[in-house]
Amino acid sequence: MRVLYHLPLSPFSRKVRLVLAERRLPFELKVERVWERRPEYLAMHAAGTVPVLVEDNGLVIPDSGVICEYLEEAYPDTALLGRTLGESVEIRRLVAWFDGKFASEVTRNLIGEKIMKRLFGRSQPDVGLIRAGYANLRSHLEYIGWLAEQRRWLAGNELSLADFAAAGHLSALDFTGEVDWSISAPARDWYSRMKSRPSFRPLLTDRVAGVDPPAHYPDLDF
Amino acid sequence: MRVLYHLPLSPFSRKVRLVLAERRLPFELKVERVWERRPEYLAMHAAGTVPVLVEDNGLVIPDSGVICEYLEEAYPDTALLGRTLGESVEIRRLVAWFDGKFASEVTRNLIGEKIMKRLFGRSQPDVGLIRAGYANLRSHLEYIGWLAEQRRWLAGNELSLADFAAAGHLSALDFTGEVDWSISAPARDWYSRMKSRPSFRPLLTDRVAGVDPPAHYPDLDF
Repeated sequence: MRVLYHLPLSPFSRKVRLVLAERRLPFELKVERVWERRPEYLAMHAAGTVPVLVEDNGLVIPDSGVICEYLEEAYPDTALLGRTLGESVEIRRLVAWFDGKFASEVTRNLIGEKIMKRLFGRSQPDVGLIRAGYANLRSHLEYIGWLAEQRRWLAGNELSLADFAAAGHLSALDFTGEVDWSISAPARDWYSRMKSRPSFRPLLTDRVAGVDPPAHYPDLDF
Repeated sequence: MRVLYHLPLSPFSRKVRLVLAERRLPFELKVERVWERRPEYLAMHAAGTVPVLVEDNGLVIPDSGVICEYLEEAYPDTALLGRTLGESVEIRRLVAWFDGKFASEVTRNLIGEKIMKRLFGRSQPDVGLIRAGYANLRSHLEYIGWLAEQRRWLAGNELSLADFAAAGHLSALDFTGEVDWSISAPARDWYSRMKSRPSFRPLLTDRVAGVDPPAHYPDLDF
């Protein structure tokens, strides 16, 4: 059985879980406590991050970006990276936007600074970074809302990897209670459509010791 | 004429310049001073980073990762992303390694902290970060040397995007005089082969106000 090494709060792992489920590719989830730096895991993936996908034939595919490109090439029945050059550019632009810009401006400040430091208790969270994270989240929600008003899905008329990249981050933030959905009604509507997809269901039953998701987290009609 | 908006010290811009030249795609270079946040540029690419490629047909392609995937699809004569699934995974894994891990552990600490702060004079460079950058550069050079000893090129027997991603970072660092090539003879040999390629020549004549590259920078026999 295909194995995905992951962490429940990792937005990059969440993106891959959604994409595998959308492609109807069965997989077994294994939690990898990356901070333990397990030698067998580092031998497989020297960077030591999650997610890593291991195929039945033994092929090891690290990094969520690499995994998503691989899945598109290996299982072309489901096209999540567009069908024309222009579509692919817009989809990959938004994936880079969420996994690069959104990740460093929002996710790192809120989940990295606030939640991970609380869970591990290693150092004091930096209040300035957390404040910046909330301000940036507001702008990003407005941008998502703007995209969702122009188009059926974030990158165009078809559901694409851009939606799953955004949903990976937002679902991790929503799990930790960080998202004020009243900021943008169209962003909320888009996220509600994402949440209703069968691929999303396993994420809504995630549990993490030390984090209580808000009451609306698993609620499809939040 | 195709236009590439770039900055001479940006390793991501350098990667794309090398890849365009390897593909024999003519292009005009335009320096984009991203810190000026030019409205016309932001309208084209909201994230405001370099590089951005603009094709003759008007297609705007931002982000070096997006550009390199686009070029592979649009101009398939030159394959820089491998021919089998396994090759592609290894190439993209290393591109993610250099543009993610190497960038944050080395380039950001040395070029970001040391050179950019000196050029802009906005705040004092953080000595701890610079020291970490040198220590990390040593490990990374050893890893590159190890790869270069196992294989003809970094990701396998064929020259690939992995080589250009690594060369983008190392050439920017070498330009600023940060690389001690005595750390790894095989890494030095690999870089010397990269530097001898015709695609590399324009990078060796770059000039940046306020930065004097070391005497060996343009030297093919350094």
